[in-house]
Amino acid sequence: MAEPQRSRQAALAELLIGSNLDGLLVCGLPNIRYLTGFSGSSALLFISPTETWFLTDIRYEAQAASEVIGASRVIVEPSSLWKGLFEQLASRPGTAAFGFESAHLPHRDFERLLKEGARWTWRPTVDLVEGLRIRKEPREVEAIRLAGIIATSALERTLSEVRAGLTEGEVAGLLERALRDAGTEGFPFGTIAAAGERSALPHARAGGRPIARGDFLLLDFGAVYQGYCADVTRTVVVGKASERQREVHSAVLEANQRAREMVRPGMTGREADAVARGVLEGRGLGDAFGHGLGHGLGLEVHEAPRLSRLSEEVLPAGAVVTIEPGAYLGGWGGIRIEDNVHLTAGGAELLTDFPRELIELS
Amino acid sequence: MAEPQRSRQAALAELLIGSNLDGLLVCGLPNIRYLTGFSGSSALLFISPTETWFLTDIRYEAQAASEVIGASRVIVEPSSLWKGLFEQLASRPGTAAFGFESAHLPHRDFERLLKEGARWTWRPTVDLVEGLRIRKEPREVEAIRLAGIIATSALERTLSEVRAGLTEGEVAGLLERALRDAGTEGFPFGTIAAAGERSALPHARAGGRPIARGDFLLLDFGAVYQGYCADVTRTVVVGKASERQREVHSAVLEANQRAREMVRPGMTGREADAVARGVLEGRGLGDAFGHGLGHGLGLEVHEAPRLSRLSEEVLPAGAVVTIEPGAYLGGWGGIRIEDNVHLTAGGAELLTDFPRELIELS
Repeated sequence: MAEPQRSRQAALAELLIGSNLDGLLVCGLPNIRYLTGFSGSSALLFISPTETWFLTDIRYEAQAASEVIGASRVIVEPSSLWKGLFEQLASRPGTAAFGFESAHLPHRDFERLLKEGARWTWRPTVDLVEGLRIRKEPREVEAIRLAGIIATSALERTLSEVRAGLTEGEVAGLLERALRDAGTEGFPFGTIAAAGERSALPHARAGGRPIARGDFLLLDFGAVYQGYCADVTRTVVVGKASERQREVHSAVLEANQRAREMVRPGMTGREADAVARGVLEGRGLGDAFGHGLGHGLGLEVHEAPRLSRLSEEVLPAGAVVTIEPGAYLGGWGGIRIEDNVHLTAGGAELLTDFPRELIELS
Repeated sequence: MAEPQRSRQAALAELLIGSNLDGLLVCGLPNIRYLTGFSGSSALLFISPTETWFLTDIRYEAQAASEVIGASRVIVEPSSLWKGLFEQLASRPGTAAFGFESAHLPHRDFERLLKEGARWTWRPTVDLVEGLRIRKEPREVEAIRLAGIIATSALERTLSEVRAGLTEGEVAGLLERALRDAGTEGFPFGTIAAAGERSALPHARAGGRPIARGDFLLLDFGAVYQGYCADVTRTVVVGKASERQREVHSAVLEANQRAREMVRPGMTGREADAVARGVLEGRGLGDAFGHGLGHGLGLEVHEAPRLSRLSEEVLPAGAVVTIEPGAYLGGWGGIRIEDNVHLTAGGAELLTDFPRELIELS
């Protein structure tokens, strides 16, 4: 099978020609990974229609040699990647206009371009590589599906081990171990394990609170396979659910289901969000849904597109996104049910298969 | 006990007056946490000698209310923090010169300052808050010590469970679960569990390689307590060590020990590094030590100061740093022994107490 990195670099070179740029300095690490395969944490990439230079530091020499695909030069720097970049650029004849990634370049490094790179013209660009990444290739969708299988199989094992009396942190530890045993390459974000009234905090980290019988337990966690992320949430009750717990859960479940049925390419992020929001508003829970419906998923756990009240962006075919409606009632608790779907002409293809009905752990 | 965030804000206000700045826009999240206590992932902070404005988005409303200390205004924005910032600034009379954090502000947001913030003068600053953070308060040293206890107690439990046949990823899962049970708040970096020849890659993540008898197993991992990080590495042999394994291990151990005895405030980062490097060079392993001796530790797992061949920075009293010499022989394996120390007038006070002699797991 052809190496996808080479065709991604070629697609980017086309964009550069269309933007009248002689080259692009890529400094966002997920973008560098997408274009070259490099998974380390120190690199710069310079791409022009005729050249691809990859720069890293000496700690990653062996890793670069085994991972980087499609680079015409691999430069290992003992001290500063920037020094190496300007030396390479100086070997090019004449002047030129290069792009840089405005969202990923800190101002301090922008000043390097103005000073040490003053010989060239530097133009800010936004979302050039992200625009390629948003439409997933079949192999990328498969990686996310496999990350989803890691996530849901670990969740199944964890729910069989959870009992009242464990702390949130201990539950996170059970889940993270199960994720490792199932083959995750890491944790794309800090595991959320929130019990009882803490489940009403959409971004609660796992803490020292012990789980009591009758508590909600909200688990929001990720898995990584070949660099690609899955992001799953389920909310269960430890013990017997109350009427109110059932009621709010069923509203969120209906919002999840309706969104999975209705969301498709061509909708805006706002229209997709409105599908789930409408269900919750109809149940009197519109104000309890304080975040957006979802976000893109890929090499990063949060990437384009956004599904939210504020997004007029059109969802493209091929995107992989989360569907994660929630309802949070301060001091009482919250519920979120999150799946990952692939947006195809036929609709939202489900990538995360795990029961959504309210589970009562005995 | 007084809230340290208020005195940190006062110390920063002094620096602003000394720099002829009317205020500072803080966008580095660890800096915001240091100054206010806020531990979420979306915030801006504006500090002047008379005002402290904290801005976050609606997802963090409850968390900001319970965490943020010393803010004269807490502003919860439904959409853009930047919109909120400029509205607040517009309520100030007249013009002024404000600083911003050059290392933490992406170019894209720098452009906002130039456009929407054109009414004010914006000056890049570097390391203003980091300069305060580098000298740890006693309570910060205690938090790192407690994170170190979490780390070393989890390591002890994990080593009792490791056996040949487990994969690196399964070992990482055992360690991460033990860290959760011991009370860590999270994982400050991806756990490194590298077996056999993979231990020669200083930044190998845990993968699918099973451990064989006679393999090195290098474990480099972190723990977090009250937001403060510990960072520990030990390298053991699964089974009986070879002569060569003992020899290289004893050289790294001697480098670790000599550095802990000799490193003190007033040395430069380069001088500190040279203590360990000299030991390894004397054993013919100078080329095998391909990274620096260590780095600062605090709210971030990598912060100032740096202990390396390239750092002429003087180590200040009160810093907490890692001491982590290593020797890596490509295709054979590598060893690193990493501790955390507090630099005091009396020398390097050890914060991570765990055996350093070569352990052979049965």
